[in-house]
Amino acid sequence: MNQKIRDMRDCLLRLSAIGAAEGGGLTRLLYSPSWREAQDCLCAMFEEIGLTANFDQVGNLFGRIEGREKPEETVLTGSHVDTVRNGGTLDGQYGILAGWLAVGRLLAKHGRPKRSMEVVSFAEEEGSRFPYAFWGSKSLVGLADREALRQARDAEGHLFSEAMEQAGFDFEAVRPAPRKDIKAFVEAHIEQGGVLENLNQQIGVVTDIAGQKRYTATLTGEANHAGTTPMSMRHDAMEGAARCMVTLLDEAGKQGDPLVLTFGKVEVLPNIVNVVPGRVIFTVDCRHTDQKALDAFARTIESAIGQCAADLGLTAEIDCWMNEPPVPMNRELIERITRVCRERGLKTHVMHSGAGHDSQILARHYPTAMFFVPSIKGISHNPAEETRIEDLVAGVDALEAILYDLAYSNSQLKSN
Amino acid sequence: MNQKIRDMRDCLLRLSAIGAAEGGGLTRLLYSPSWREAQDCLCAMFEEIGLTANFDQVGNLFGRIEGREKPEETVLTGSHVDTVRNGGTLDGQYGILAGWLAVGRLLAKHGRPKRSMEVVSFAEEEGSRFPYAFWGSKSLVGLADREALRQARDAEGHLFSEAMEQAGFDFEAVRPAPRKDIKAFVEAHIEQGGVLENLNQQIGVVTDIAGQKRYTATLTGEANHAGTTPMSMRHDAMEGAARCMVTLLDEAGKQGDPLVLTFGKVEVLPNIVNVVPGRVIFTVDCRHTDQKALDAFARTIESAIGQCAADLGLTAEIDCWMNEPPVPMNRELIERITRVCRERGLKTHVMHSGAGHDSQILARHYPTAMFFVPSIKGISHNPAEETRIEDLVAGVDALEAILYDLAYSNSQLKSN
Repeated sequence: MNQKIRDMRDCLLRLSAIGAAEGGGLTRLLYSPSWREAQDCLCAMFEEIGLTANFDQVGNLFGRIEGREKPEETVLTGSHVDTVRNGGTLDGQYGILAGWLAVGRLLAKHGRPKRSMEVVSFAEEEGSRFPYAFWGSKSLVGLADREALRQARDAEGHLFSEAMEQAGFDFEAVRPAPRKDIKAFVEAHIEQGGVLENLNQQIGVVTDIAGQKRYTATLTGEANHAGTTPMSMRHDAMEGAARCMVTLLDEAGKQGDPLVLTFGKVEVLPNIVNVVPGRVIFTVDCRHTDQKALDAFARTIESAIGQCAADLGLTAEIDCWMNEPPVPMNRELIERITRVCRERGLKTHVMHSGAGHDSQILARHYPTAMFFVPSIKGISHNPAEETRIEDLVAGVDALEAILYDLAYSNSQLKSN
Repeated sequence: MNQKIRDMRDCLLRLSAIGAAEGGGLTRLLYSPSWREAQDCLCAMFEEIGLTANFDQVGNLFGRIEGREKPEETVLTGSHVDTVRNGGTLDGQYGILAGWLAVGRLLAKHGRPKRSMEVVSFAEEEGSRFPYAFWGSKSLVGLADREALRQARDAEGHLFSEAMEQAGFDFEAVRPAPRKDIKAFVEAHIEQGGVLENLNQQIGVVTDIAGQKRYTATLTGEANHAGTTPMSMRHDAMEGAARCMVTLLDEAGKQGDPLVLTFGKVEVLPNIVNVVPGRVIFTVDCRHTDQKALDAFARTIESAIGQCAADLGLTAEIDCWMNEPPVPMNRELIERITRVCRERGLKTHVMHSGAGHDSQILARHYPTAMFFVPSIKGISHNPAEETRIEDLVAGVDALEAILYDLAYSNSQLKSN
């Protein structure tokens, strides 16, 4: 146990040194210098344990060991290497490191597996630099839409294609190249919520991943003098945005769990104390595990924005730039993982995921499952994100057992 | 008339070439390079018409002609040279140029005046770069609080004192140095509202200037994952800000004119689409011509912010950084100006001002009055800010007549 705790701590410290941010935590955004540095570090780590490390076209990194009986069948594990701004040191990279530790132990104990195994470090999942999430996992399954990103810029105005080039990858060379050899994908991840902690459980096996829609709404009114423009003559875009947010938050409250609604990013123009705001641009992030409920609330969002605009004589533009349906995990894998975890004496709970994960992208192409380890106080996307080291180690144990069952045993792996 | 129109157009074009902004209009902020360039241009213009030009300690620029009988009595006219971001070409600089044109004509027609005359270009009035308004006029009357600006920074993080130094002025050398020789101040300004246009009037003589309070409110909650944090467990600072704004806008609507309320500047942290906002910083700008009503609404603002914070488990900090009482103009000057305008056949209306002006600072120290020329569609603080050239010329005529009455005639000038 002590050695396992040390190993977990060491590799976390090693990778968390890359991308430490002013204001705390990690800021490691797609194609930034710290992103490249982290991928290069993982490349070296993969090679240290005897894996062959390679990047694909978009910067996903893979560490592979060929199977000795069915090399054409690959069992994949891993997660994403990017973070939100001032995020924690576990979201994403824990899954990569858990894979590295588990595969390292399996190779040391049992030698070459029957099926091939790969640990993946997905290039991007969060959508926190450019308005496109799951760039890494979508590229793996052949769904990444390069053209959607041709004009995309980050908050500082950098073009996606230029950022990609600066990191050593070629935007123009990107082609859909879906992997056909993957027979199972298992992702270990922190829960980022408070359920496991509340129930005193160590492992949360995931049944479904919530669907989510993300919008950018632009309300345009008229910038004007804050002193001389009577209230009745204003077209105040901030008033429009505020009324819209309150209406929708009240509506979300009526719907109740598992609906979640967030106005995370807001830009006011011209953003001066004594000028009536002429334009407000804000994002909407809305999630639900049920497709019908999610679609119904999407209509509520669009109609509320339109109505608040009309009431105040504003114009509204609504751009839905993310639309991910809820995704069920593979039922057979859920059963196998739950059994394997309980056999090892781990306190195992079955639950849904409110957060999007790379698993939801892979699940429609390959048998996929994921499991959580607890988050202390449910905190995530925050430098205070934390998990007890014993639980992190339990997750690696679980992953080792699962990967043994999938890659070393004689059991069949059925396709989706 | 043609010559007057040409003169007005020419000097407007000349000064408006300095500070032209990306996005349209003028952006000429205190102590910026374009600010210094504009003051230097005015310095040259003052000298062209025979005035002696000098800066004071803080960068106010004065063009002076000594009186031949009572040189120790000064009649002052002018306005402010700074703008809001992407503002128009008339707010502030029209009053300086009207003074330059009027004084130039008086000197040409009548020679040296009995009393001294000065045209002033106040360094700063808008509060649009640093959180302090009327730095120019408050310095003139000895009320500028240098220590309040010692730590002040602009939106890009530049210190006030460093910006002042870059413009050629010395922060540490600033001392209160109130002028004692000023016997009257008259300010010509665009209305920045729609009253004169609606009433088809050319000159609006101002009775009172509305008082205003400006706040910066900071609501702090908890940044967290937008997907996994149930709505009931959130401390969403954007929700707090939105609910607070809606509550106060509803309350302002109930109060009615002349109350105005604006949330002009909003900063959300961390400002990421999939992170519940942990902090929101927003400004409040509230104005009224009646002190009691303004104070009562100030209490409403403070209590609403506190209540919205408490309801959502947020903390609130409220900083009132501007607190200007309503200010009456000099009743005798109002009568003289109204008479002089009507004698010249100008369509003259008497009204209050919803905007703050340098006149409100000077009015408590010297007999002060101001008058407006109309604003087309009431638009201001906007590149589309405009006034018919004939009305701009009428304003110069009015100012010439007023300054003749004050500086060339034998009439007494009583103190406040």
